[in-house]
Amino acid sequence: MKRLLIMASLLGATPALADEGMWTYNNFPSSKVKEKYGFAPTQDWLDKVRLSSAKFGGGCSSSFVSADGLVMTNHHCARGCIQQLSTAKKDFIANGFYAKTQAEELQCPALEVSQLLDITDVTEQLNAATKGLTGKAYADGLKAEMAKLEKACATSEQFRCDVVTLYQGGKYNLYKYQRHQDVRLVFAPEQAIAFFGGDPDNFEFPRYDLDVSFLRVYGKDGKPAKTEHYFKWSEHGAKEGEATFISGHPGRTSRGLTVSQLETLRDMTLPKTLFRLSEMRGQLTEFQTRGAEQKRTSTNLLFGVENGLKANKGKLEQLSDKGFFAQKVAAEQELRTKVNADPKMKAKYGSAWDEIARAQQTYRDLRKEYESMENGLYSQLFGLARSLVRAADELPKPDAERLRGFNDANLPQLKVQLMSKAPIYPELEVLQLTFSLTKIREELGTEHPFVKKVLGKESPRALATRIVKGSKLADLKVREQLLSGGKAAIQASKDPLIQLASLVDPDARAIRKRYEEEVDAVVRKNSELIAQARFDVYGTQIYPDATGTLRLSFGAVKGYVEDGKQVEPFTSMGGTFGHATGEEPLALPKSWLAAQKTVKDTTPMNFVTTNDIIGGNSGSPVINQNAEIVGLVFDGNIQSLGGDYGFDESVNRAVSVHSDAIVEALQKVYKADRVLQELRPGATSAKGGSGL
Amino acid sequence: MKRLLIMASLLGATPALADEGMWTYNNFPSSKVKEKYGFAPTQDWLDKVRLSSAKFGGGCSSSFVSADGLVMTNHHCARGCIQQLSTAKKDFIANGFYAKTQAEELQCPALEVSQLLDITDVTEQLNAATKGLTGKAYADGLKAEMAKLEKACATSEQFRCDVVTLYQGGKYNLYKYQRHQDVRLVFAPEQAIAFFGGDPDNFEFPRYDLDVSFLRVYGKDGKPAKTEHYFKWSEHGAKEGEATFISGHPGRTSRGLTVSQLETLRDMTLPKTLFRLSEMRGQLTEFQTRGAEQKRTSTNLLFGVENGLKANKGKLEQLSDKGFFAQKVAAEQELRTKVNADPKMKAKYGSAWDEIARAQQTYRDLRKEYESMENGLYSQLFGLARSLVRAADELPKPDAERLRGFNDANLPQLKVQLMSKAPIYPELEVLQLTFSLTKIREELGTEHPFVKKVLGKESPRALATRIVKGSKLADLKVREQLLSGGKAAIQASKDPLIQLASLVDPDARAIRKRYEEEVDAVVRKNSELIAQARFDVYGTQIYPDATGTLRLSFGAVKGYVEDGKQVEPFTSMGGTFGHATGEEPLALPKSWLAAQKTVKDTTPMNFVTTNDIIGGNSGSPVINQNAEIVGLVFDGNIQSLGGDYGFDESVNRAVSVHSDAIVEALQKVYKADRVLQELRPGATSAKGGSGL
Repeated sequence: MKRLLIMASLLGATPALADEGMWTYNNFPSSKVKEKYGFAPTQDWLDKVRLSSAKFGGGCSSSFVSADGLVMTNHHCARGCIQQLSTAKKDFIANGFYAKTQAEELQCPALEVSQLLDITDVTEQLNAATKGLTGKAYADGLKAEMAKLEKACATSEQFRCDVVTLYQGGKYNLYKYQRHQDVRLVFAPEQAIAFFGGDPDNFEFPRYDLDVSFLRVYGKDGKPAKTEHYFKWSEHGAKEGEATFISGHPGRTSRGLTVSQLETLRDMTLPKTLFRLSEMRGQLTEFQTRGAEQKRTSTNLLFGVENGLKANKGKLEQLSDKGFFAQKVAAEQELRTKVNADPKMKAKYGSAWDEIARAQQTYRDLRKEYESMENGLYSQLFGLARSLVRAADELPKPDAERLRGFNDANLPQLKVQLMSKAPIYPELEVLQLTFSLTKIREELGTEHPFVKKVLGKESPRALATRIVKGSKLADLKVREQLLSGGKAAIQASKDPLIQLASLVDPDARAIRKRYEEEVDAVVRKNSELIAQARFDVYGTQIYPDATGTLRLSFGAVKGYVEDGKQVEPFTSMGGTFGHATGEEPLALPKSWLAAQKTVKDTTPMNFVTTNDIIGGNSGSPVINQNAEIVGLVFDGNIQSLGGDYGFDESVNRAVSVHSDAIVEALQKVYKADRVLQELRPGATSAKGGSGL
Repeated sequence: MKRLLIMASLLGATPALADEGMWTYNNFPSSKVKEKYGFAPTQDWLDKVRLSSAKFGGGCSSSFVSADGLVMTNHHCARGCIQQLSTAKKDFIANGFYAKTQAEELQCPALEVSQLLDITDVTEQLNAATKGLTGKAYADGLKAEMAKLEKACATSEQFRCDVVTLYQGGKYNLYKYQRHQDVRLVFAPEQAIAFFGGDPDNFEFPRYDLDVSFLRVYGKDGKPAKTEHYFKWSEHGAKEGEATFISGHPGRTSRGLTVSQLETLRDMTLPKTLFRLSEMRGQLTEFQTRGAEQKRTSTNLLFGVENGLKANKGKLEQLSDKGFFAQKVAAEQELRTKVNADPKMKAKYGSAWDEIARAQQTYRDLRKEYESMENGLYSQLFGLARSLVRAADELPKPDAERLRGFNDANLPQLKVQLMSKAPIYPELEVLQLTFSLTKIREELGTEHPFVKKVLGKESPRALATRIVKGSKLADLKVREQLLSGGKAAIQASKDPLIQLASLVDPDARAIRKRYEEEVDAVVRKNSELIAQARFDVYGTQIYPDATGTLRLSFGAVKGYVEDGKQVEPFTSMGGTFGHATGEEPLALPKSWLAAQKTVKDTTPMNFVTTNDIIGGNSGSPVINQNAEIVGLVFDGNIQSLGGDYGFDESVNRAVSVHSDAIVEALQKVYKADRVLQELRPGATSAKGGSGL
């Protein structure tokens, strides 16, 4: 990845140039878009697009595409649900799923789709609540005020409210969501075409994936929710050069981080993450060869691991680029020089960078224990056990004093997670727990008191096997009793997972507290100052780093140059057949091979646009200026991975499924008429049984 | 790892301070040692120690410890042989091995022990042969002259001669070795005590391992070789503060590399290596759970992978240390400034650093193809196939034109490798080939011509399974025929592994040629210049980077401070029992538990010294100034891993088995009287059957 980087984000300076920016809906640069693309989104347009967009589960995006609650997202976003609904005999991951009637639509075990109803700026309230505070007092003050605002906003269980930290704390906005918790699967293609090319093709372009799925949100009455706001389907799909907008939930970017924070990422966090993911990938790859059922149950996890690996490798590569890093250093130096040149600004902001650097050093010192004790143990069951143990301690406290995630505003979501019917696979549980226990021992050493306390005389595998075998937490009723029974029930429980979670919790809380007070609070406080310095120096027409909240980006359908060669912006359905070898991950499903003759070869399959996106944008609608669907984001190209730290319009590309490919496949391959009719009421379609 | 680094090596400057240095036998700083430890090794002493030392296999060290060819090394150095001699029914790795009579000593399938007879400086010859040459001509000239010198020196099959590149090419020495190819296993403890604590304790201290094994070299007559030079056993073992010498074969250090080379290591080579090793570790860990036989056959490989992981993580950590790296940059700058201040030196050496930096960029551009095509495919069988394919092409050429490794001087070793009786495990072959094919596809992408050529329409696993199943290369006779049959036999072979090796060889050779000419030759040429510049500026009383050849280091038994706490230099046999939990890797073998009461608790078990060592020193004898064995090196502490780039006497430590522990265990636990008598003729010992 060698390229010339000229990025507004790097300089942290001038308003974003070119197609850069994941803009908030309350600070969208319509006039800039008009200048470049001749179209200025109006407030009405923005409102409609915002309300037709939806957050999907924990880390994806989606859109409403009919008046009856039909939701479109990626296959890989719904994969968790699809796998949870599958059994050894009915494998919807391998074979796809299509509900021919509404009655056949299957409810996802634990999934929430939410719509951003309202944004309120609460910066002043937060600043007032933390004025003059530092360290623990600052962290507590911030947490308490956030919980208070969220609680006041979430007036019923159908709403969720989050105080969102923007510009590293330069602004705080209160986001109010409409929650949809009854979400049912309508259509999913086979994994073989949804993730055609598998890990080797992931983050690459040209690409040939039908990474789409349809679900439907239902109301409390058990009927499809009526959705006033939704996107209509474009008649012609995306064309080369056409302006495109992407509305979704980019998870996280780090463009505003200081150099010392980027160094921590480059020298420690990213390498450590990659070592862990690489090893887990090896384990899962080998685990998959044990048998068909092991393969089925671990595919989703393996996908996540491999996806994370590629994404984080791209990030590390970007930060290891000397030229790029030098630009980051220069940009920080420029801002600091400007701040120091003004005595007032100097007094207010001057020490913020060094404070953050010191907090980085504290983090380096705490890291092993923090990551081992607070984040080191994981598996589906352990996650449940810890939530139950912590709920018992937290829920009796006043709202403002609880750990984040246990506030009143979070309770509905917590209950959904704890009471999820998602299947639990013991063999995979043992694998994950063994792995996480082994890593803790590796990090802290065989003689560390925490390791001795957790392992006793057992090996990681023996301990993991014993507690998974002995635990009853897979039983919903047991979890219900433990949740409603509170502290007494937890203390009386002989469940080995509850006991393990209880055993480690005091250490985990203690180190977490130190982390929050000595690292997190210092970073937050001083990041806020730097963000304010940036506003003072460069003005407010800049976008904040991604935070998993709804954003709008603009761009156009456009190819790029890679290794001296032109990469065309479209692939075709014909090319899809040409790319197949017949062997996984380049084997097409039977339905496609059967339909090959009827599919129109020239139909665009995937395409790229210059929109600035990042992980979390998966499932975002790509729309034209009429707010019609022209595509569905499912990936970024390999060059976009460095986008975490800066955007380069010459090569960063969002990769999407073309809307025409979705229609052609639904029509010719899957004969999914019911979905097609709903997407394009009035349009004609082929008749015949489903290809699935 | 935070520490203050004040290292001579860093400054590349003054003669080594303190106990730093892996010294060649023809430039040992006896007067410095005298200054610090009151003892100046004489030429006689040095000759005796050199001739009592021996290279062991490909990457270890050892020593002669009796007049009858008895060799002492680490268990982990002999592990390859021990595993090769084992079967599912007779598992010497798990159960240990002791030949009660000489007749029971078992021959290792492919192992060479060699003794450094002679060192000749050939710098002038090499310089004359390459005078005025660059690029390909330089590389060819160097190679041809090396092959010529080696051939003239190796007058019979019992000698091996290597031209050794020292000081990055500042000097070339011709090393002549006596080869011992009939090596038999005499004694090995159980893996459980040899590698007690397993991977979690690896590179840690305090430590409690009996990582020792004894073997014997035999002559052509099938009788134990008579060894004139050998080390006697010390009566009292190593004491705190005592001066210690370590004679062994440190594999490689990179203290003389330029900043651009270190950056390549830090930003690319080390992370990529670690990702690969992490993933392989995951695969093997999971593979081991398939069954006892899978565990047995893969343990040796897993050990290597885990050992490599820890070692390389330590290196990366060191290079990621900002302060350390800044010192490296400063040292280079100092030398360059001094060179540039003198017009004559400037003209001669001035551009060398930039030339190397340019070659680094070329390597970055070539890397994916070079590493995939030339180094990307590996497994035991594939290695054999490639050697056979290349031998058929190379051996008919004039000696000077052949690839390194195929010169006349290397032929005896090549034959030993090709005709090794070491068992081959098909399941593990499939795993490794699948892994390497998957990585090649990952690096180059699904559409790369090389990937398409190798994989065709098959998946990595399908291809690996087919060729391992179809190959007859595990059969010695087949390999013999292919070797003697030359090119015609290779071309006629239908063996799928020979066909695969033949298929990839043209691409592999082409990219290797580019690498050798555009990267390696440039780096060699200019490293030579920098080394000469260093001699000119700082004089010649400096030591060269490790190169896998025999070196002598000096130091003393001494504890150190870690995380503010004093680490004592010794552990005890009693502590060994205290460290056990009963669960792998902290489970002691039955023999030890049975002997617990008879073992003297206070016997020193392991100890640390300040000697400067690195990987490859495993198995080195630790001797006192009387050249008596006081210990056996088996590891370095975690702080020593950064020793690749610089030595820090305050914390770098060599970790050794104490000679008293070896005696106590042979006597009380194993009742291995025959070995004991040989080590200490005349000493008394307990009677009774062996504990094994």
